[in-house]
Amino acid sequence: MSKSEEGSVPADTREDIMEATFRALSEHGYSDLRMRDIGEEMEMTRQVIHYHYDGKQDLMSSFLEYIIDQYEGSVEVDGDAPPRKELEVRVHQCLFGPGFEEFSHWDRMKVYHELFTHAQNDAEHRAIFNEHYDRIRGSITEVIEDGIDRGVFRDTDPERAGQLITDIIHAARGRKLSLGHDDAPDQAWRSIDEFVVDSLLADGVEPGADGSDA
Amino acid sequence: MSKSEEGSVPADTREDIMEATFRALSEHGYSDLRMRDIGEEMEMTRQVIHYHYDGKQDLMSSFLEYIIDQYEGSVEVDGDAPPRKELEVRVHQCLFGPGFEEFSHWDRMKVYHELFTHAQNDAEHRAIFNEHYDRIRGSITEVIEDGIDRGVFRDTDPERAGQLITDIIHAARGRKLSLGHDDAPDQAWRSIDEFVVDSLLADGVEPGADGSDA
Repeated sequence: MSKSEEGSVPADTREDIMEATFRALSEHGYSDLRMRDIGEEMEMTRQVIHYHYDGKQDLMSSFLEYIIDQYEGSVEVDGDAPPRKELEVRVHQCLFGPGFEEFSHWDRMKVYHELFTHAQNDAEHRAIFNEHYDRIRGSITEVIEDGIDRGVFRDTDPERAGQLITDIIHAARGRKLSLGHDDAPDQAWRSIDEFVVDSLLADGVEPGADGSDA
Repeated sequence: MSKSEEGSVPADTREDIMEATFRALSEHGYSDLRMRDIGEEMEMTRQVIHYHYDGKQDLMSSFLEYIIDQYEGSVEVDGDAPPRKELEVRVHQCLFGPGFEEFSHWDRMKVYHELFTHAQNDAEHRAIFNEHYDRIRGSITEVIEDGIDRGVFRDTDPERAGQLITDIIHAARGRKLSLGHDDAPDQAWRSIDEFVVDSLLADGVEPGADGSDA
């Protein structure tokens, strides 16, 4: 068990270390990051990091969980809207994110996508991302299941439709970040709406007829 | 102008350097890669690299163009199949790729996705990827335009549909590589078929009625 898993890091200290890590990552990128770069972003001595974390790998895994928690927290909904509207709300939250105090959604997503690609070579990060993916895809899938139950959506594999939407969201963010396509998230929603949602609507259900304002 | 743009690198030498770069990248990853790592993969002295390339950035840009050429060369088709079938052929080529002699399609794609994410921070790589994206998306878009012209596909924005399919392909490859979802490319094709192609088929055109064997 790594030090950081023992729950021994006080919440304030963890927050300070995580935000310092975020600033250092934004500046140096993942692969060039050294523990001392993080220390330089902190007011506390960097011995605090070494006291709580077993080196870069341990710290990075905690950091990945931290930004995933932020992301998932920002897209949590306990909405009770009609399925089509509910789907739109959840997809929009994933695509456009919330504002954060110091850094934007896109600053966070830049680091998120860098770590995602790095998970090619890192079994621990891959496992964390897989659990995260299950939850995000699950959040989309459950709306589709609900729509099928209510007869608003046609009978289809909700898991596959949820995966498709999750993939489109991920690709659009990647295009915005890597290729500079600032309209990619907007395009993604229009495509999801035109192709996926439209195809999901059961025969005889007109857009808007499920009570949404589409 | 960088040395490598002057067309002064003999084809055999370029091939040797590029394949050595590929082996070194597969072993060390992009950010940790040093010129000497590439030299160690070559039979020639590594002075040859320094003679032809202005350092790591210049070499990496040439390498990116090299793997993109390989990828695009492998998905070139001059097919004349019915639009739906043609779309399937092109999407499959992008998703599953060809075999290469020494390394698999997925070894190449691993490096490709690493460089794609790195383009977040690299304007030159971003420009190369954007040109590449235009061509890949264009290859899908032209089939959709053809289908619309022939009345097989409904009237829609072919550019947006082409972008959507390109995004789904990219996301599926990323999931396979980063999350280990080996069935992601298969899922992607089934989703494209169920949602996008099905939605594209003009009213009254049954799957298969355009002459494809769907």
